Formats: sequence, structure tokens, C-alpha cells
Amino acid sequence: MKATIITIGKELLIGSILNTNSKYLSSKLTDLGVEVSKQVTVDDNMADIVNELDIDSKSSDLILLSGGLGPTNDDITRESLAKFLGKDIYIDEEEKLIMETRFSRNGESMPKNNIKQVCLIEGSTKLKNNWGVALGEYIVKDKVTYVVFPGPPNEFENMVDNYLSEIIKSDDNIIVKSLDVIGLGESRVEEKIRKLNIENGNVSINTFAHQGYTEIKIIGKSNDFTFVSKSIEVVEETLYREFRDHIYSDKNLEIASVLVEKLIENNLTIAFAESITGGKLASSITDVPGSSNVIGSSYVTYSNESKKMNLNVNRETLEKYGAVSDKTAYEMAKGLKEKTNADICVSTTGEAGPNPSEKEVGTVFSCIYFNDKKYFMKHYDFNGGRNKIRNRTVNSVLSQILFLINRKEYQNEGK
Amino acid sequence: MKATIITIGKELLIGSILNTNSKYLSSKLTDLGVEVSKQVTVDDNMADIVNELDIDSKSSDLILLSGGLGPTNDDITRESLAKFLGKDIYIDEEEKLIMETRFSRNGESMPKNNIKQVCLIEGSTKLKNNWGVALGEYIVKDKVTYVVFPGPPNEFENMVDNYLSEIIKSDDNIIVKSLDVIGLGESRVEEKIRKLNIENGNVSINTFAHQGYTEIKIIGKSNDFTFVSKSIEVVEETLYREFRDHIYSDKNLEIASVLVEKLIENNLTIAFAESITGGKLASSITDVPGSSNVIGSSYVTYSNESKKMNLNVNRETLEKYGAVSDKTAYEMAKGLKEKTNADICVSTTGEAGPNPSEKEVGTVFSCIYFNDKKYFMKHYDFNGGRNKIRNRTVNSVLSQILFLINRKEYQNEGK
Repeated sequence: MKATIITIGKELLIGSILNTNSKYLSSKLTDLGVEVSKQVTVDDNMADIVNELDIDSKSSDLILLSGGLGPTNDDITRESLAKFLGKDIYIDEEEKLIMETRFSRNGESMPKNNIKQVCLIEGSTKLKNNWGVALGEYIVKDKVTYVVFPGPPNEFENMVDNYLSEIIKSDDNIIVKSLDVIGLGESRVEEKIRKLNIENGNVSINTFAHQGYTEIKIIGKSNDFTFVSKSIEVVEETLYREFRDHIYSDKNLEIASVLVEKLIENNLTIAFAESITGGKLASSITDVPGSSNVIGSSYVTYSNESKKMNLNVNRETLEKYGAVSDKTAYEMAKGLKEKTNADICVSTTGEAGPNPSEKEVGTVFSCIYFNDKKYFMKHYDFNGGRNKIRNRTVNSVLSQILFLINRKEYQNEGK
Repeated sequence: MKATIITIGKELLIGSILNTNSKYLSSKLTDLGVEVSKQVTVDDNMADIVNELDIDSKSSDLILLSGGLGPTNDDITRESLAKFLGKDIYIDEEEKLIMETRFSRNGESMPKNNIKQVCLIEGSTKLKNNWGVALGEYIVKDKVTYVVFPGPPNEFENMVDNYLSEIIKSDDNIIVKSLDVIGLGESRVEEKIRKLNIENGNVSINTFAHQGYTEIKIIGKSNDFTFVSKSIEVVEETLYREFRDHIYSDKNLEIASVLVEKLIENNLTIAFAESITGGKLASSITDVPGSSNVIGSSYVTYSNESKKMNLNVNRETLEKYGAVSDKTAYEMAKGLKEKTNADICVSTTGEAGPNPSEKEVGTVFSCIYFNDKKYFMKHYDFNGGRNKIRNRTVNSVLSQILFLINRKEYQNEGK
């Protein structure tokens, strides 16, 4: 099955916003085994839209349109599709009533223009929009399926999530699973998977590099549901065996979210002493709802003065080894432990550039400190600019913490 | 002048990455007065690319291609354009030599496949790639200009910045200026501009909402350079008068960058005591190169315990008014001043949700403290989810700090 995605709107053509809808839909279609052969963006212009439909209907089985369903005169996506198909448009009275009620509840009367948003093309199937106003719909003509989705990303993504598989109605049962892996680069993950030789006609595996983790996506496809479920299960088991501690999530979650969940689950607290990351580690944790259970205090100790004052780092250490050194990272984490008594005390120090002061740009040290006998030092050499170095530090440190928690490293010796 | 942008690559069609190139180029073309009538993405497939060129050459004066210039067999953008134009491809010997030298310097011989990247289409103008390997080029046939750019965003954006105006060679002189405005929403800015009634056939003004600031973009266009420069100057002067303290930059810079620059310029230091923002303010400052001149220590005081321990906030204040209160925000900033003696001490406290503990979600207090007699309290009520509330807090606080610095509020009374 071949698909074309048509997004409609001036704001895309003048480069005012990124086309997140095309990306979102392409990724979902790919998961469902549909080949996206073209993405195209045109203006709210009937001639352009009809022309595009004419071209694409010759090479695609599925044409998905998004945008141009607003109440203004500019918005003519539905009208253009109707014209191309040679069909009429009618008002969906049920939806009109719902909309009128919504307006009257706020003491307003419905503006006349809004009626457009509850119209449908003759012979189409309605796609109710529970996240906004404009109705979606789909219609089949000459073996080509035409789909209309509203443009605002929140509405669009919800409509795609709720209706796409219904529209595609493949005879195949498709199951998509993701496993998220830390501590191994994409190419290593890829290599290991290829060696396992577990793909077959029904199960395919792809890897995707994200910031700080690699996603393994397993797609199973067959007209026999029991068979495809079983196949996926076998593949998952093999992957879990192969990647053991490296798999941190099967829900496509951010590392920080999983980390906060694990900290809560194990009743652990965390604190940071950040030099190179300057608050990024603390903010990635406090980004997560519920983080107040695991973090109380955290410090940005950017200057040497601050490292001494807040964390009791020795002047001699800074002078002899430099602020960017494993010794300083260790003393920062140790001082943090004394100050906060958090279960996990984490320090970072490094050169983010652009102008190095003592070590080469990209040199980073971190220390994850549980107690005097148990701490983990890391020395990284990152490439890239200031932002990349800082972000890679955050991702590497978070994944290392998670890795250590999964291995129960926080438990005292002898336990 | 009408343009079509063709981006080429599987990773776009499977939804693995966002199409930032189309957005970037569209925005630059729009600035230069070129109308982008279509953006399209196709696979690395010669038939598809040639077919697309055939369609677009009938409706566009300018066709810009990006991607598919790598060394692998998949990459066939240049070959496809040559085929469509009925032209041959040749090796640029000068560039080949440069590339061979680069490889031999690393003790390697040049892989045979890389030769593709230093090839050009017969009769084209070379666009040297100083940011990567693959050459760009442009060629005119039957009044249509065809441009080829490499796909990696860093190379692509640099090539666009350096060569686009040379390629377009309009008779018009185009001048684009941006003014960045804080402390006023986009619709207020828009309204004020319309009232000024300063647009004309040669000068147009648009506004764009960014996170925390509004960009006013002025585009002047005329075949008379002196005239268009003068017109822009007059419009700029009027806008500077109208928006006075609200304009913080004319370089399209992030607020944090401008703030760090201003702090350095005025020899000021800053520190944060962050509750709701949890490290985001510190990290937005430390994101900026040179920030070590202005920030030494900063604190995330998420728990009440931490507010007491690190900032000397009174237990009674927390009990009587709550952690989310103007009293607590004030004491946090005052305690921070005592601890760090930074020139500007900034605190934030609020409810980010999802589950409120004492005040309504979206309630935020901040205090910008210069000294005992001079401090500025703010109470915000933000809508939205956790991330939005936290980001809006950061942007609002940073813009308020900048606004106060621009008004020299940091100076002592009597100065």
C-alpha cells in the first residue's frame, strides 16, 4: 500500500512552523506497514489542491490531507476534495446541534462561518473530532482512499491515533513494540540484532538513535493474530536476553521519567552538584511529575569559589588537578553527600567550550556517589559544540544512574 | 518568482526526522520575496525525482533540491537532475584533489564511492561546501533555475545562508530586519503596528510569536537601494519609539544570550533560587558561552527543608503562607543574596502540577532582588500543563530581569 500525505497551509510554506504532522503521520503509517512515497505541502488554494490530488491519485492507494478545515474563507480543503471527487457537501445536523449547544452554553450564538467545520462530503465516513471542532472524514473512490484530518497538531495526532488503523483496515494484524536501550550505541545494537538473525517474513526489526538511548522497534504483521503475537513474543524474549540490563523501558519513555519512577519505587533520593551541566540535570528530573518525592536540594557550582563554599572541595585539589578532573568530581559528589545525605549524589565537571580554560573542550568527569565505599567515576571525551557536549553529558549521566539502579548498586555491601 | 522545494530521503518519509531544511529554506526564500508554492519530499528513487522535476518545472521559476548527495549507491539526486536536464556529469578535478589530500592527511586512501560528491552537472555553477563534503551547484534551463544543496542540516543551512541571494539575483534590493520584543504579547504588538500605519508598497511588517518574545520582521524591497535603506530606517525609528524598553535585541537572539551579554557589559553577577523551575533558569544561563563570568553558585531548593537549610527561609513563613507565596519567594531571594552576594538574586516558587499541593496549578511567584530596598515581586497565573508552566515561568522571569537591567534598576538609589 502506497500513501501520499498532503499538508495544507501558508504557515508551512513561509517557513513559520515545522511540519510535525507529516512526520507524525509518516511514522504511524510506517509502523502499520504502509509505504509513504511522498509528502507534499501546498497553499490553501483550490486549483493547487485539486491539481495535487489529480497527480497523487494516479500513484497512491491512500491520500491523507491535513489542514485547511478552519472556519475562515481561506480554509478550503474539504471543498477542494469534494470538487476533485465530483461530490456535494452537506451539513451534519447532529454535529451542528452539538456545536450550537457549545456556543449557547457560553452565551454566544454560533458564528455563521463555523458551519463549515461540521460539513461532510457526500458518501464519506465521519471521523468525530473529540479534541477540537472541525470534523474529519474518509471516502473511497476508484480504489483510492482519501482521508481528511484537521491541522492543529494536538487534534491531528489524536485523530491519527484513534482512526488510522480503522481507515487502513488491513487484513493483516499488526503489532508494534518498542524496546529502549541505554549504554550501547545504535550501531552496536544493530550489529547484535543482525547476529541474532531473528527477523523473518512476519517480524521486522529497526533501530533508531535518540538522544541518550537507542530504540529497537519490532513490527509484526500477519493475517493470523495468534501467530503474530507469538512471533513477537519470541523475538522480545530473545532481545531481552541479549540486551539484559541495557533495556530500560518498553514504553518509549524519556530516560528521566523512567529514572524518577525507579527512584520512587526504590524509595531513593537524588541530588546533583553541577558544574558543566549548570542545572540541566536537576531540571531534567524536575521536569517529571512526582519528582518532588526524590529531589530536595540541588546545586549549580559553576565557579571554583562555589565548589569550595557549597561542597567543601579542597583548594589544593582545584589547584593541583584543576576543576575539570576526576579528583574534583569525586570531592564534589562527596561534599554533596555530606550536605544533603541524598541516597545518590551526582557531580559533573567539564569543558563545554567554546574557549577551554584548562582541559580540552569535550572533557567531562562525573561521579555517582552512593557512599564512601561505593562510587562510580566516569571520564567522557565528547565531540561537538557547547550544547551538544552539555546534552550528551546529561543523557550519559542519567543513563548511567539508571543502569546502576537496575543493577541494585545502591544497596550496601553485604546486603 | 515561484519556488518549489524538493527534499529527498527515506528518513523523512518514514517519519524518523523532522524536515527542518524545508522550514529553513522557506523562511529564507520568503524573506527574499520569493513565493514558495510547494514543498515536496520523495524517496531516493530516480523515477520519482525525475517525475517530480518534470511536474514542478512547469509551474516554478526556481526548484531547490536537498539531500541524496552522499557517497552511497542510494544517493542519486545529482544523477536524477542531470538525467532530467539531459546533461552529463563530470568530476571536478580541483575538488577531487582537495578531498584526496584530506584523506591522505589521515593516512587513508579515498574510498572510490566518495568521488560522487565532487561531481558536477555539465554547465552548472559550483557551490563550494565549506561545511562538509558534497558539492552544491545551480543551473538554469528554459528560464527555470535548479539548485542542489547537501542534506545534513548544518551544511544545508550554511550553504543557504551563503549562496541563496547570489542564486536568486533579483533586481530588487531586499533588506530584512528583525526587532525582538518582550513584555507584550504578539497580538498587542500586531495591533500597535497596524495603528502606526507605516507599511507601504516597499516595506512590509510581520510579527511572529516565539517562546517568551515576539519578533517584528521588517522586509524592504525596491530596485533603488538608497531608497529602500532609507525607508527601512524610518520604519525602524518609528518602531523603536513605539516599543521603547520592550525591544531587547535586533539580532534575533535568545533572551538568555542577550541577558548574559548585558550582565557582562554591566559587570553584574546573577544567582537563582529555583523551586518550580528546578534548575531551568540556571541552565538557560549556563547554556550561553561566557556565562562563567556572571554565574557562580545557583540553587535548586525543591523541598521546604531545602529552602530552610540553603536559604534561611523561616519555618513560620512556610507554615503560615505556604511555599507557594510571595512571602516565601521574597525570603528565598533575600537568603540567596546573603549566601552568594550576587548583584541580582532571583527566586521562583509555584505549582507546576499535575497535582497541586497548596495553591492552584499555574500559580507562580518570583522575586528579583537587588538589595533590601529594591526588589521586584511578580505573581503569575499560567495556563497549561507542567512543561508549559515551567517554560513560561523561565521566559517571563528572564525577560523581566532583562527589562529591569535595561532600565538600570540595578543601580543604587541616588546614583
